[in-house]
Amino acid sequence: MEGMQVLHMNKGEREASYATNCTVQRQIISFGNTILEEAVAESLQNTLPKSMGVADLGCSSGPNTLMVISEIINHVYHTSFEMGLPLPELRVSLNDLPGNDFNHVFESLPDFYNKIKKDKGIGSDRCFISAMAGSFYGRLFPTNSLHFVHSSSSLHWLSQVPLGLDNHNIVNKGKIYISKTSEECVVKAYLSQFERDFAVFLRSRAAEMVAGGKMVLSFMGRASPDAAAEVGSHQWELLAQALMAMAKESVVQEEKIDSFNAPYYAPSPQEVRNVIDEQGSFVVNHLEPFEIGWDGGCVDENGFEKHNFELEETGKGNAKGKAQQVAKTIRAVVEPMLEVQFGTQIMDDLFRRYGQLLQDYFSKTVAKHINIVISVTRKF
Amino acid sequence: MEGMQVLHMNKGEREASYATNCTVQRQIISFGNTILEEAVAESLQNTLPKSMGVADLGCSSGPNTLMVISEIINHVYHTSFEMGLPLPELRVSLNDLPGNDFNHVFESLPDFYNKIKKDKGIGSDRCFISAMAGSFYGRLFPTNSLHFVHSSSSLHWLSQVPLGLDNHNIVNKGKIYISKTSEECVVKAYLSQFERDFAVFLRSRAAEMVAGGKMVLSFMGRASPDAAAEVGSHQWELLAQALMAMAKESVVQEEKIDSFNAPYYAPSPQEVRNVIDEQGSFVVNHLEPFEIGWDGGCVDENGFEKHNFELEETGKGNAKGKAQQVAKTIRAVVEPMLEVQFGTQIMDDLFRRYGQLLQDYFSKTVAKHINIVISVTRKF
Repeated sequence: MEGMQVLHMNKGEREASYATNCTVQRQIISFGNTILEEAVAESLQNTLPKSMGVADLGCSSGPNTLMVISEIINHVYHTSFEMGLPLPELRVSLNDLPGNDFNHVFESLPDFYNKIKKDKGIGSDRCFISAMAGSFYGRLFPTNSLHFVHSSSSLHWLSQVPLGLDNHNIVNKGKIYISKTSEECVVKAYLSQFERDFAVFLRSRAAEMVAGGKMVLSFMGRASPDAAAEVGSHQWELLAQALMAMAKESVVQEEKIDSFNAPYYAPSPQEVRNVIDEQGSFVVNHLEPFEIGWDGGCVDENGFEKHNFELEETGKGNAKGKAQQVAKTIRAVVEPMLEVQFGTQIMDDLFRRYGQLLQDYFSKTVAKHINIVISVTRKF
Repeated sequence: MEGMQVLHMNKGEREASYATNCTVQRQIISFGNTILEEAVAESLQNTLPKSMGVADLGCSSGPNTLMVISEIINHVYHTSFEMGLPLPELRVSLNDLPGNDFNHVFESLPDFYNKIKKDKGIGSDRCFISAMAGSFYGRLFPTNSLHFVHSSSSLHWLSQVPLGLDNHNIVNKGKIYISKTSEECVVKAYLSQFERDFAVFLRSRAAEMVAGGKMVLSFMGRASPDAAAEVGSHQWELLAQALMAMAKESVVQEEKIDSFNAPYYAPSPQEVRNVIDEQGSFVVNHLEPFEIGWDGGCVDENGFEKHNFELEETGKGNAKGKAQQVAKTIRAVVEPMLEVQFGTQIMDDLFRRYGQLLQDYFSKTVAKHINIVISVTRKF
């Protein structure tokens, strides 16, 4: 199964769609905002563009899509002002796979243009937002056309199921991602696929970006060198449990679970740095993992979840509400690829069971993810 | 009613959608192909781009969308070869209004990229196809970024119902476009709106195009100086007849017909030339009207329809089959705007009646349209 064919979020605005379930992604974007602000400013200082190329890779289709662009434009606007420079012409490209719901994004563009015109006086002759459909594991944009690149919550998706594990039901039985019980060859296959993919990603962006241009990336990772560490894999562990329970009841064929492996990898900071250094086109300015609660809440220095008052007020602060919220978020992202393997008809049942497992988990644990945030500069 | 909100083709692939009913548009594109070929070659000779910006304005969403791009790339490929120049990097922008079904276009992109790679060796690092949603009656693209612009079957749509005729039910009663019975002020309002819109179009493209860049436009027009001439208005005349018949049966409120005027204008060649000359940024190289049968067949020099063997073989060569085909084509284009005014529920009935009127018309007349084809150069 090629990742490209099935990696798109659920379309439209029904309950399970990404557009209504992206609180976590939004929080990740916010946490990275300081790094974003610095990187945008440095990009402007380094390149002094008259016309500035900006790309958001894996933009998806929801409220976050234009929120990121809005923040980038905001930073460009203020930095230009502080530097005493005229605002550059803004060429903004939104990228995602061809299956992404770009129609939904386009429908919100007229309001967005009106807003930046009203708030900042940026007219239709100064900002041009286009869409580029295709995989970021390959070339997407013209040579030397970009000054700033952003990607959030996307690069943990591999271009395909790791070579050697696609349609293979002899190893990693009963699991759908790296697990404590996974054979060494499974761990290696995942790391190799990540290294290949991320190197292609960097090489492609290197060709597209001007010298001094900056790139801010954030994606799921892990802090531990151990690829089977709970953080970074537990959402798949629980999903495999739900599937295996269904296999025991003969609702799902066990061979289908054995032969399924998610096109996903949560790398360690060191693994990420190794690929960047090896590829050679970018200098690393920041590379840090940070913890984030599964429902988008922060985890403080002692590992306790900070209060998320909004969730508590709406009754989502308890394990059940949180589990339902997380099950919906994950469903919005992974359902399309699971449907291909297991069929549409079992999805409601699967995610009901998954929600129950999440609830049990949340009642015992402060669940958290690791997010890796990177800021790099295209070498001169 | 603002044209921008309702001017999109029927989405998807059901019977009434544009994707399955665009034979006429395809024939218009083919007729213009010689002019297209010359213009692409001249654009390359004039500008010698290393990276070539190409835009298709009003690209819609159907098989024609990428057919035009394919032909342009073909011409660029052959001309570059003949001139002994390396193929420029191709930056292709597909434009239509935000309501266009861009998802459908994007889904066919991977196959398109594979085809140009296979046929011409143009890899993913040489051709970049993006989408730009917005009205071409305004800026769409960065300054000096385009070398070639194409637009087919789109510029007869105005940016809005002519000023003064929007929601006005005192003039042009019982009609929905300029008719023999239309008051002089109606004719003037339509011409003024066309002049304003087309001037904005030219001014916007002038800013976006490099000197020496070329633009090929084709759209519905008329040969006669008389704006109420049958050619160019008859499809609206018959549609008004169908609506009025429904008003007589109280299925439609007559006031709704009185207050509706189509955001469409079929200009004469002279009217088009006047706006281009007045605006001043472009030199006219070609500007010619040609006749085209309503079902996409040619009309020969004596006004007789040339045989369209494909249509005859499939039984569509007779008045009934042709009427059904034309009713479907026009429905695919105008239904969204009629739904806003008259409601969804009367559409099947309306287009059944319209099909009958077309059949009567075709059995008495060799029905034809005038298409105006223009080739212009951005002044140096």
